[in-house]
Amino acid sequence: MSISIREILELLTDSGGSSPENGVDGLEYGNPDAAVKGIATAFIASQHVIEKAKSLGVNLLITHEGLYYSHFQPGEQIAGTDVVREKKRMIGQSGVAIYRNHDGIHRSQPDGITYGLVRELGWLDELEGYSSFAAIIRLPGMTVAEIAAHVKSKLGLGQVRVVGDRTMSCERIGVLVGYRGGGNPAIPLFEQENLDLILYGEGPEWETPEYVKDSLSQNKPRALVILGHAASESPGMKYLAESLQTKLPDIPVHFIPEEPLFEIL
Amino acid sequence: MSISIREILELLTDSGGSSPENGVDGLEYGNPDAAVKGIATAFIASQHVIEKAKSLGVNLLITHEGLYYSHFQPGEQIAGTDVVREKKRMIGQSGVAIYRNHDGIHRSQPDGITYGLVRELGWLDELEGYSSFAAIIRLPGMTVAEIAAHVKSKLGLGQVRVVGDRTMSCERIGVLVGYRGGGNPAIPLFEQENLDLILYGEGPEWETPEYVKDSLSQNKPRALVILGHAASESPGMKYLAESLQTKLPDIPVHFIPEEPLFEIL
Repeated sequence: MSISIREILELLTDSGGSSPENGVDGLEYGNPDAAVKGIATAFIASQHVIEKAKSLGVNLLITHEGLYYSHFQPGEQIAGTDVVREKKRMIGQSGVAIYRNHDGIHRSQPDGITYGLVRELGWLDELEGYSSFAAIIRLPGMTVAEIAAHVKSKLGLGQVRVVGDRTMSCERIGVLVGYRGGGNPAIPLFEQENLDLILYGEGPEWETPEYVKDSLSQNKPRALVILGHAASESPGMKYLAESLQTKLPDIPVHFIPEEPLFEIL
Repeated sequence: MSISIREILELLTDSGGSSPENGVDGLEYGNPDAAVKGIATAFIASQHVIEKAKSLGVNLLITHEGLYYSHFQPGEQIAGTDVVREKKRMIGQSGVAIYRNHDGIHRSQPDGITYGLVRELGWLDELEGYSSFAAIIRLPGMTVAEIAAHVKSKLGLGQVRVVGDRTMSCERIGVLVGYRGGGNPAIPLFEQENLDLILYGEGPEWETPEYVKDSLSQNKPRALVILGHAASESPGMKYLAESLQTKLPDIPVHFIPEEPLFEIL
């Protein structure tokens, strides 16, 4: 029995919420009527990931972030670079259809990217619930350094960035994926949810980290553990691959991990 | 002879460009008619910096970033936190006036923040000129690892984040301060200016770093050295303190450095 790309995408959009205004999800490349031979998911549609998908015999790649280094369609100056032109040519030759699943997976209940990270961290039993964009975790008292070590071990990371006192004991943790480390999502959460620590993907350095620094100056102990954007959202895309495999037992479904982008020197 | 805060601010705005629409510069706290006893500059008006300014006998603090964890005025939810309320109270008791000099120093010719960083890096003789938001540096062939070591030594940093091959030799470097590491300022610059490496403060991780990763997949060697926002802009505020001291020999002018925000675990 053959299933088309269009049918897979209907399966995905049915499980997500309705598409928001200014949404970014959609088929970025490929023929929706083609029969699906294999599926892969990944954080971002990098050239490395597309090549890996092709080598796995996959013809549908589902990624969270897009192709051209921009949340929305890139402007003319980026679109006109040699790297973008070469990547377009390479995609055209790959035979791999590329679907972006960003808004849909974030809007599913619960947010599939957040759930995937909490699951990968081994904290589903400690998950108290969700508050706005965050998962709230209750731990039996771990220091910042112990939490950092746990996170690195569970996610296979070489390092995390930390703000705060590494010996501080933490019981209530907020988990915010992707770019939700910015001041508006993260700062009010500390006080509203009485959090000791927020673990986030990425956010402007002069926002939440400076709030935590001032909070420490006021003898209000708080801490941050910063994973990086890709590290915080890849587990959700791995979780998506597993969910799809359960729904589609006859089609091979892979998750394609990537090496960390940054090296610390 | 006494000089008022207002007169110092006129001196500053005269040397900057005209104020842009949506500009953020201005006196955030204090009485412009007070006589200036001492001046300090810093990257951000953290509580630590304000306390240090007070202990130095300074009553005018000039910072690049603002008070409340937001480029613009913070929204209600941030403004309503205990940390903000306590900081407001502490500022009111400090007797330190606080002026934000963000747009003015960026709009001076050359951009004082960029110039200050190039100067601190010891690259004024290697400065070829400016292109859009960047300083263009020509080096006599240094590897990425050598550039990272040079930058860490000159700026007193424990680490930098790097994307690319640490053994790659680089001759043309773009220097982008603050949040100018984003895709729109940084990506086109690589190809327009034929750069081997861009050194920037901060930018979204899925933009310029992912472009560099794809560029490497295409065998077009390029690299990034990422300093952090504060590390990239503090030298410009240090340079401002020295310039003000030259113009105002009778008033003590200090630069207040801060410890790095992030610890790598």
